[in-house]
Amino acid sequence: MTLHVLTGGAGFIASNLIHRLIDLGETVFVLDDLSRGRPDFWAPFQGRPRFRSAIVDCADLQAFRTALRDAVGDGDIAAVWHLAANSDIPAGIADPRIDLQRTFMTTFNTLVLMREFAIPTLHFASSSAIYGDHGETAIHEDIGPLEPISNYGAMKLASEAQIRAAVEAFLPKANVVRFPNVVGVPATHGVIVDFVDKLQATPHTLDVLGDGTQRKAYLHVEELVDAMLFIAAHAQGRYNVFNVGPPDQGVTVRAIAETVRDRVAPDAEIRYGTGGRGWVGDVPRFRYATDRLAALGWRPRHDSIGAVRRAVDQIAAQERGRG
Amino acid sequence: MTLHVLTGGAGFIASNLIHRLIDLGETVFVLDDLSRGRPDFWAPFQGRPRFRSAIVDCADLQAFRTALRDAVGDGDIAAVWHLAANSDIPAGIADPRIDLQRTFMTTFNTLVLMREFAIPTLHFASSSAIYGDHGETAIHEDIGPLEPISNYGAMKLASEAQIRAAVEAFLPKANVVRFPNVVGVPATHGVIVDFVDKLQATPHTLDVLGDGTQRKAYLHVEELVDAMLFIAAHAQGRYNVFNVGPPDQGVTVRAIAETVRDRVAPDAEIRYGTGGRGWVGDVPRFRYATDRLAALGWRPRHDSIGAVRRAVDQIAAQERGRG
Repeated sequence: MTLHVLTGGAGFIASNLIHRLIDLGETVFVLDDLSRGRPDFWAPFQGRPRFRSAIVDCADLQAFRTALRDAVGDGDIAAVWHLAANSDIPAGIADPRIDLQRTFMTTFNTLVLMREFAIPTLHFASSSAIYGDHGETAIHEDIGPLEPISNYGAMKLASEAQIRAAVEAFLPKANVVRFPNVVGVPATHGVIVDFVDKLQATPHTLDVLGDGTQRKAYLHVEELVDAMLFIAAHAQGRYNVFNVGPPDQGVTVRAIAETVRDRVAPDAEIRYGTGGRGWVGDVPRFRYATDRLAALGWRPRHDSIGAVRRAVDQIAAQERGRG
Repeated sequence: MTLHVLTGGAGFIASNLIHRLIDLGETVFVLDDLSRGRPDFWAPFQGRPRFRSAIVDCADLQAFRTALRDAVGDGDIAAVWHLAANSDIPAGIADPRIDLQRTFMTTFNTLVLMREFAIPTLHFASSSAIYGDHGETAIHEDIGPLEPISNYGAMKLASEAQIRAAVEAFLPKANVVRFPNVVGVPATHGVIVDFVDKLQATPHTLDVLGDGTQRKAYLHVEELVDAMLFIAAHAQGRYNVFNVGPPDQGVTVRAIAETVRDRVAPDAEIRYGTGGRGWVGDVPRFRYATDRLAALGWRPRHDSIGAVRRAVDQIAAQERGRG
């Protein structure tokens, strides 16, 4: 038996990836500390023969090691999909130990155990946050300088660096996939969830942090997972780095607010704050160059506003179900 | 009373910097865990009113905090010169926890305490190792991609990233100085020390790891410290990054071996190994672009071979004294 291990396995992105891997006939072993992941995301898979789960903090090396040893049994592990990270960027800025532990030490320990268990392939969920603020420039994978402005971005960059050194020393293969803003369901956080929840609580007004001019590229989670699997199947090098996202200039917070308003509470008044940044550590705009992944053969079907529209419909339905 | 704090304060570079800072009228507080630093480097300063020292592991946050609190008293701290790091790169590749603790966690804790103590300025000893292997290309500060091939390089890059995020969140100023290979006295390790020691042990032959074609830029420690002080005095931004080194193509290991042989044991036979790299994680060649620092107004007086020659003379004398 061959396992695919998913860290951060109770998160938003993992729950989509689990589905696809099982459909492909793979057996998955998912780990999550449930600090932000939701165990109800596992409910659809529980009891299936190709699904196993454990509640484990991957920043705790001994607990992580024991969980892998118990799960692997006489089989082996084909790959680790390392998705575990702190997803609350402002929390990580207030207390840098959060990103140290959840974003970096989970990576560090993943590499230690990949060496111990001789696991050949790592798929790593990196982020546009490693780049910092490049203004209107289209960001290609080899751009410099890399100046992350949040501890989250710093610890994602630290993770990439440690992975690169591991490939030099022992790791046969690593695919680093730099995510843009990702939207879709089951959503746990993010600007669309915030706006939907605010409008469901107070349907007449929507208060937006910042002046609404922040502009970013968005990708739907279904497309992100599709891209990750495509890269896993087709990237040939030992160390591969790909931006994944739409090549457009993204959409503004204003456009997202209006899309949510139109869908959830068409009569609501949108009230903007001031300043181009929502919070310290937020990159106010970015635009991806995605030529490298296009050359490999993958392009998203939706542009940023298309991804946002689809996600708003899905999240509005999800949150209505919860509310 | 205003202190300058030096971490890694019993190291080769710190011992040169202490001298200069005291000459400039500053009061220094040096910390070192003595894992590789040498307390005898402190001997010339002990008892001087402007010199204080403590044996502390800066990867131990509570010990580091207590040491700073005790030292600062009613005064304050003008700057931290963060030089602490693992300097044994192969050891860090064999056990990544070494660079995690000594190279990265010392930086992480330095930033935590700079926030707590409201210390306004950080001077950080970074490294050409963050760049990875760019072949014959002259490496300027904004080059990409950054692909370190050792855990040392990875944890220096992680440190830079965390510092950049700290500047965004709270730190008023940081100067990141990317060192090349640095030579001089009091030397503790490195290729010149190795060759001198080998020739003093076996004066007829000198065995060189690799084929001797590795080519790197070398800077004398006296010039490095001069550059650090120049940057401290003149760099205006809140986050400044500088390569420091000669702009030349560097010197080969072969040229260093011959310089040492000529100085120490002129009749010795030099025997080379094979391969362009001495060990895993070693970048076989690099060349710095140093236009940014030149534009600020600082240039080294010696080229790489000049720095090596001066260092070989000094190290031969030092090692003879020890032997």
